[in-house]
Amino acid sequence: MTERIAAQLAFLIEADKLKSTLRATTLCDGSRRENSGEHSWHIALYALVMAEHATRPVNISRVIQMLLVHDLVEIDAGDTPIHGTHDPARTATIEQAAADRIFGLLPTDQAAMLRALWDEFEAAETDDAIFAKSIDRVQPVIANLETDGGTWPEYNVTATQLHSRVGVKVERGAPAIWHALRDQIDAWFAT
Amino acid sequence: MTERIAAQLAFLIEADKLKSTLRATTLCDGSRRENSGEHSWHIALYALVMAEHATRPVNISRVIQMLLVHDLVEIDAGDTPIHGTHDPARTATIEQAAADRIFGLLPTDQAAMLRALWDEFEAAETDDAIFAKSIDRVQPVIANLETDGGTWPEYNVTATQLHSRVGVKVERGAPAIWHALRDQIDAWFAT
Repeated sequence: MTERIAAQLAFLIEADKLKSTLRATTLCDGSRRENSGEHSWHIALYALVMAEHATRPVNISRVIQMLLVHDLVEIDAGDTPIHGTHDPARTATIEQAAADRIFGLLPTDQAAMLRALWDEFEAAETDDAIFAKSIDRVQPVIANLETDGGTWPEYNVTATQLHSRVGVKVERGAPAIWHALRDQIDAWFAT
Repeated sequence: MTERIAAQLAFLIEADKLKSTLRATTLCDGSRRENSGEHSWHIALYALVMAEHATRPVNISRVIQMLLVHDLVEIDAGDTPIHGTHDPARTATIEQAAADRIFGLLPTDQAAMLRALWDEFEAAETDDAIFAKSIDRVQPVIANLETDGGTWPEYNVTATQLHSRVGVKVERGAPAIWHALRDQIDAWFAT
């Protein structure tokens, strides 16, 4: 086996572990917690279908690639629930080290390419990253709405918190999607 | 909510069910069966990293989109293990009906686009589909090698069957990957 293919396979085998990282949200049928591997697939499909609602035109190929790798650092760092309590500085340090380790398994050129995509996603400054972030944020909202609030009660989420932690970011990248959901969200929190 | 966004969300919520379709292969740590949602994410990542090994140059954006939707029909049809016993004509009929129903949830233009990608994957005639198929076939081989043969014994798979059912297709789309694995595969079946 060439050294290059061995490095690529080592990375892909390591990536398999993301299927064992559990998130705060459940599946849409409430049967179990979602893992970060299947979540990454689902939001890539979301992006493909919802790209027309991006605030500014996006390169869908780059957005999808970004979403495929956006959570790989959770293999080391675990998922950080948006409504949980965590120290953002500490999480960032752990995730940077995880990115060094995991992308570092790849041949140098591919490590640099995928690391740059992850950095761009994290920075959330380009049109592609802003849209990708909005999709990453809105998918769990839809899972929660499908399961009568899902894990919002467990995290004591208020309507105000949902708007400030999630709504603002979804509106930034894909306002039409947030506006489409707002009535349903308001109705759930009003009950 | 506009009718268009409602249709897009209905499709994306339906797609969530793919996370509950179990495959024949386990995760690389052997802890449980893999589901078709996380498998779809993993092979999209495989394609991104392994595209340089395609027999002929591929459009990686199309390949990834194809892989994101390639298993959606399993929501209705279930997974068809490559080493299992099934009636190919019956499976094809069920999968065609599933494609009609599931892609049909989308707005007409998007239903046609994603259905065409799925049809292209199934036909396995274009360079993009041939490469996508090879990636879909090789990922479970690697999971089985990582778990001491994984579910090969359960399905009574022989070295000859693995070559005729899997190897031929991987070699068609990504020969370098199959050649890289051959020694390890031969060694496993020799023991």
